[in-house]
Amino acid sequence: MQVGDIDRYGPAKAKSGMLFTSDNWAGVHPDILDAMVAANSGNAPAYGNDPTTDEARTALSDLFECEVEAAFVTTGSAANGLALACMMPPWGAVVAHEHAHVHIDECGAPEFFTGGAKVLTVPGEGGKLTPAALRDALSVYSPPQYHRVRPAALSLTQATEWGTVYQLEEIAALCEVAREFGLKVHMDGARFAGAVASGAGTPAELTWKAGVDVLCLGGTKNGCMAAEAVICFDKALAEQLPWRQKRAGLSWSKHRFLSVQWSAYLADGLWLDLAGHANDAAARLAAVMSRHEQIDLILPPQINEVFVTMPDDLAEKLRGRGAQFYDWVQPNDAYGRKARRFVTSYVTTDSDIAALEEALR
Amino acid sequence: MQVGDIDRYGPAKAKSGMLFTSDNWAGVHPDILDAMVAANSGNAPAYGNDPTTDEARTALSDLFECEVEAAFVTTGSAANGLALACMMPPWGAVVAHEHAHVHIDECGAPEFFTGGAKVLTVPGEGGKLTPAALRDALSVYSPPQYHRVRPAALSLTQATEWGTVYQLEEIAALCEVAREFGLKVHMDGARFAGAVASGAGTPAELTWKAGVDVLCLGGTKNGCMAAEAVICFDKALAEQLPWRQKRAGLSWSKHRFLSVQWSAYLADGLWLDLAGHANDAAARLAAVMSRHEQIDLILPPQINEVFVTMPDDLAEKLRGRGAQFYDWVQPNDAYGRKARRFVTSYVTTDSDIAALEEALR
Amino acid sequence: MQVGDIDRYGPAKAKSGMLFTSDNWAGVHPDILDAMVAANSGNAPAYGNDPTTDEARTALSDLFECEVEAAFVTTGSAANGLALACMMPPWGAVVAHEHAHVHIDECGAPEFFTGGAKVLTVPGEGGKLTPAALRDALSVYSPPQYHRVRPAALSLTQATEWGTVYQLEEIAALCEVAREFGLKVHMDGARFAGAVASGAGTPAELTWKAGVDVLCLGGTKNGCMAAEAVICFDKALAEQLPWRQKRAGLSWSKHRFLSVQWSAYLADGLWLDLAGHANDAAARLAAVMSRHEQIDLILPPQINEVFVTMPDDLAEKLRGRGAQFYDWVQPNDAYGRKARRFVTSYVTTDSDIAALEEALR
Amino acid sequence: MQVGDIDRYGPAKAKSGMLFTSDNWAGVHPDILDAMVAANSGNAPAYGNDPTTDEARTALSDLFECEVEAAFVTTGSAANGLALACMMPPWGAVVAHEHAHVHIDECGAPEFFTGGAKVLTVPGEGGKLTPAALRDALSVYSPPQYHRVRPAALSLTQATEWGTVYQLEEIAALCEVAREFGLKVHMDGARFAGAVASGAGTPAELTWKAGVDVLCLGGTKNGCMAAEAVICFDKALAEQLPWRQKRAGLSWSKHRFLSVQWSAYLADGLWLDLAGHANDAAARLAAVMSRHEQIDLILPPQINEVFVTMPDDLAEKLRGRGAQFYDWVQPNDAYGRKARRFVTSYVTTDSDIAALEEALR
Repeated sequence: MQVGDIDRYGPAKAKSGMLFTSDNWAGVHPDILDAMVAANSGNAPAYGNDPTTDEARTALSDLFECEVEAAFVTTGSAANGLALACMMPPWGAVVAHEHAHVHIDECGAPEFFTGGAKVLTVPGEGGKLTPAALRDALSVYSPPQYHRVRPAALSLTQATEWGTVYQLEEIAALCEVAREFGLKVHMDGARFAGAVASGAGTPAELTWKAGVDVLCLGGTKNGCMAAEAVICFDKALAEQLPWRQKRAGLSWSKHRFLSVQWSAYLADGLWLDLAGHANDAAARLAAVMSRHEQIDLILPPQINEVFVTMPDDLAEKLRGRGAQFYDWVQPNDAYGRKARRFVTSYVTTDSDIAALEEALR
Repeated sequence: MQVGDIDRYGPAKAKSGMLFTSDNWAGVHPDILDAMVAANSGNAPAYGNDPTTDEARTALSDLFECEVEAAFVTTGSAANGLALACMMPPWGAVVAHEHAHVHIDECGAPEFFTGGAKVLTVPGEGGKLTPAALRDALSVYSPPQYHRVRPAALSLTQATEWGTVYQLEEIAALCEVAREFGLKVHMDGARFAGAVASGAGTPAELTWKAGVDVLCLGGTKNGCMAAEAVICFDKALAEQLPWRQKRAGLSWSKHRFLSVQWSAYLADGLWLDLAGHANDAAARLAAVMSRHEQIDLILPPQINEVFVTMPDDLAEKLRGRGAQFYDWVQPNDAYGRKARRFVTSYVTTDSDIAALEEALR
Repeated sequence: MQVGDIDRYGPAKAKSGMLFTSDNWAGVHPDILDAMVAANSGNAPAYGNDPTTDEARTALSDLFECEVEAAFVTTGSAANGLALACMMPPWGAVVAHEHAHVHIDECGAPEFFTGGAKVLTVPGEGGKLTPAALRDALSVYSPPQYHRVRPAALSLTQATEWGTVYQLEEIAALCEVAREFGLKVHMDGARFAGAVASGAGTPAELTWKAGVDVLCLGGTKNGCMAAEAVICFDKALAEQLPWRQKRAGLSWSKHRFLSVQWSAYLADGLWLDLAGHANDAAARLAAVMSRHEQIDLILPPQINEVFVTMPDDLAEKLRGRGAQFYDWVQPNDAYGRKARRFVTSYVTTDSDIAALEEALR
Repeated sequence: MQVGDIDRYGPAKAKSGMLFTSDNWAGVHPDILDAMVAANSGNAPAYGNDPTTDEARTALSDLFECEVEAAFVTTGSAANGLALACMMPPWGAVVAHEHAHVHIDECGAPEFFTGGAKVLTVPGEGGKLTPAALRDALSVYSPPQYHRVRPAALSLTQATEWGTVYQLEEIAALCEVAREFGLKVHMDGARFAGAVASGAGTPAELTWKAGVDVLCLGGTKNGCMAAEAVICFDKALAEQLPWRQKRAGLSWSKHRFLSVQWSAYLADGLWLDLAGHANDAAARLAAVMSRHEQIDLILPPQINEVFVTMPDDLAEKLRGRGAQFYDWVQPNDAYGRKARRFVTSYVTTDSDIAALEEALR
């Protein structure tokens, strides 16, 4: 029995057609699984010294229009933890949104990987940091003095925990403040595909061209089995990666099965097709829900997450009819209605949405 | 570019028929890969709250003839690190053989996971600890005093780094010394399958019945894709596992693909068939090599590893003819000949061995 | 050259009669220094196994009306770090006021000592937490689930960073919320003497009788040379102390010189005389300052710290006339005036205050 | 009650005239205590920004004939821990003698301060490392590869744990091997004064001129109250010091009382007078003991420690007559006699030695 069978991570009836719990309940896209099977041919050098891994690195370099250093791991927390650890000493600090996954949902992984650096949190509407709020937060620690921790990295989540997308000029403005105070910039891209599919910019524009030093790119929520990559645009930061990765038990021996997921995921724009599908489903779901008089959209969805408020009895009714979704941690709205999160994915179908529309009647 | 493209972990020509570098260069056994594909049906709750994971736990409990707590991870270093961290405070110490993987080959993973516990090393012939040497090492720290670290776990490697197998009475005797000094017992079972296949005892006999508290059971080297399990016979030790696992970025979201490897691996004794095959191949390889006048067996192989000494020019000749194997860190033998390691695996064929025999001529 | 020669910790002209920078700029009270000299007689067992240390423990037990376990260290950050580390696992969290010293001013010491636990911050007027705000903060993490850190200790600062004093019923109410959520209670008592001298309660009433498990009692700011004590009312928490203390390089060998400070400090109520003197000086200073039309008290002082707002030109004028004090990190007041902190100490004299009154003219 | 009231650290009757337990049982030399009292004049900026601290730094720079960076702390474990942490990443390793204090007697402080670096041990006669043994140990980790930790610092103890002194050419030869493998050199100088007083060389010759990068210089065992200094000859290593020191709770606020000990200790060669006195006492003690037929010197003493073997009944007889000394962890000699350590100090008198001579009769 696992601890944590509760709340938003808890078990649900997975077979239901109205599954909106999380995009990591879906399986592996057939193209990616096929590529994994195809990679199982003969022997290959272990620990990433194989041609399949070289191909995956090349695919990522092509995607980002520059030569990148990348480490492949299996969870987003591992990717974020490794990346942040390469960016700061133990007395450093990460500055992040108060709802950031690195702060709330990783059981202290950044602290573990960095040897005890602090995550300093900043509030912001719609899951987004603003340059002004960032500057205020950093001013407390500037100029650096050894009685206080030393902010060393800004962490942006793209798309955010609230399903919103930082636009190019927003990223650039935040990166500029970060530079001014001597911080590197980390991007938690667990749902980066959704941001790109939303039309916010190309992968390069949304990252290094705007000032991002390291991107943790997620594949798992969007069709991979377990594929997250630490992508270093600042190559000096990559030097520590293999040591930290091995030391943390994160270096796969049969590495080709990790790498090949990337090649298949990125081939022919599959990753954007999948993210686009999930985004579209969320838009339609939001339209359906917002027509209900007891439901308010908290934010217009920009990726594959819909946040709404609805009263408890309506939520219960929906669940009784087979819908699955999580209550969200947030104060109730002006009508005393609780926040709820509905997540679509690359496998969400029209009939899933139609079923919810029917259940709402 | 990865660091570490060198020495025993380095790249080699993987297509050769005489591949004896490591058992982790092999692919995934078809039965296991098939099971992974079959698990890709519909949605499933994330983070191990799925029926596939329940089945894997049951399979392990059946195998070990008791109800076990288990955490599934993807590398042996992660498994060992998690297990040891649950067994001691930061001022604790692991006592292990001086050649143990946890000491030599994990880039300090035990230190990372435990928050800085020490690995105290003890020498021993053939990769094995003896009760007398263990007692001597522990006496320095007994009775516990806060100026010194506090030994808290004995770590046994089964089978050992030198391809030998602890016999039941050896394990029991070592566990007895450990208990006497208040230590828990950890077993690094990256090649545990080979030990069982060698006929040393049943899984239960070789572990909890002999006094082992936690086994890190390896599947990867013996046919899985990436499957290592922390198996707690002492359930109190399991309480910390989910927290440490999540915090270390080791909790798969699409967990079923990790779990299902275990069910397939253990089904119908597949795991022992595979390990038995590799053991047999090593025995035959040893026979072939020991007939050569310039080669001496360092130890008679008990699992799938053959350690020999041979002169450099012979090693070069073999490599020139396509054989792949690693030089081993150890003083040269009495004739100035260097140690070399040859590893077989579940995919080693008769023709691989015949080819080596031919190359030796 | 030291980093950090800046801001509130920076150098100032120490000989001035208007020294209000910090209470740690004062020397050692003669009675305490005399006791240290007297302790220098003959040899004594090292590491606290000496009769002087026994006497200090007895003095603390008498003071707190119960048998206490205590570890003696030389800085408040060390005391807080040790105490918090004994109260939680690395995935635990400390809940503290957003301006707490443990969060802002210790360069991440709690994270270092705990192995990466998080400090979760909560806002509150006048440096104080309220039960409602505490409950809100804890609710996010309740019930415990392994995706999130696990709040394990409430940290209260008594007196607070803003010179206010928690009253008995406030402490009890906060401790009650802490218990409800399974947290232990830590009190950072760097200026605990000021709180007791303010009449808020006896040492026992303000701590274990109200629900506090561990007090870090400060002596340095109030007349000692370097004397801080971790006082465990919950004796189970004390078991880890000697190990953590030694491991952190915090175990004095010539321990009697650390211990004897406590005996002298507590003898005949010296500690309360000194704190009472400093408190009185602050009250008079506040009265003097609040009569100036360009100065507003931010809070009525309850211990030896006065927080005011004043315009920059007035601050400059005062400094030009020899007054020393720090600007404080806080938004300006409604008139755009910056916050400033004035600290008195056991050596502040009437003439110091008279000099400031004169300088204000 | 403290843990650890046992073995070599345990309590003993401190008033005895035959006190040979440890040099840290002595008090503070009057000149040093006087200087501390004299420093208690007026206020002074906190945290080392005071003129007394500047003077101490200057005194150290003069002593070492170069401008040094120094951090002042109160225990040797803290000094060693800080120094080593500045010299390596968490996946680094310290190479030290198997009996080194940093390995055996600090409860894992190096691991704590470094974030889990390993201490790799090397055997050697008389507590000394040899270039050949060092080279062998480093060869296992060379060239660096990320599967293994990365040796980053050689730690030499001067004088050694066995009371021997590295000579200039020995230090130079070891430093040369260290450089060859890319390691920095740390010197644990808890009894450095004894080494200098033995005539082995000047402070500069024994350190930076021979290739040492950081010296942890001890004052406590030789007459100070609590004074240990991290002295960086390689200034780049000093950059991290203030951050690590603060974070570890090792930054005294009333810093002048720490600094002034150094000025007084070094003034007019006091430190060498004291160390010379202790060395001479040990030499005489060794002469007295070696005349006894049941006592063998293990090594000729070079500083203030005498290691002998003697049978249990003789040890008991001596203790019954009031002598105090510790049994030492080491295999018995060829006659089955246990090792014992006798330590002299700057307060050991002729009558102490005469009393032992009498007790031996």
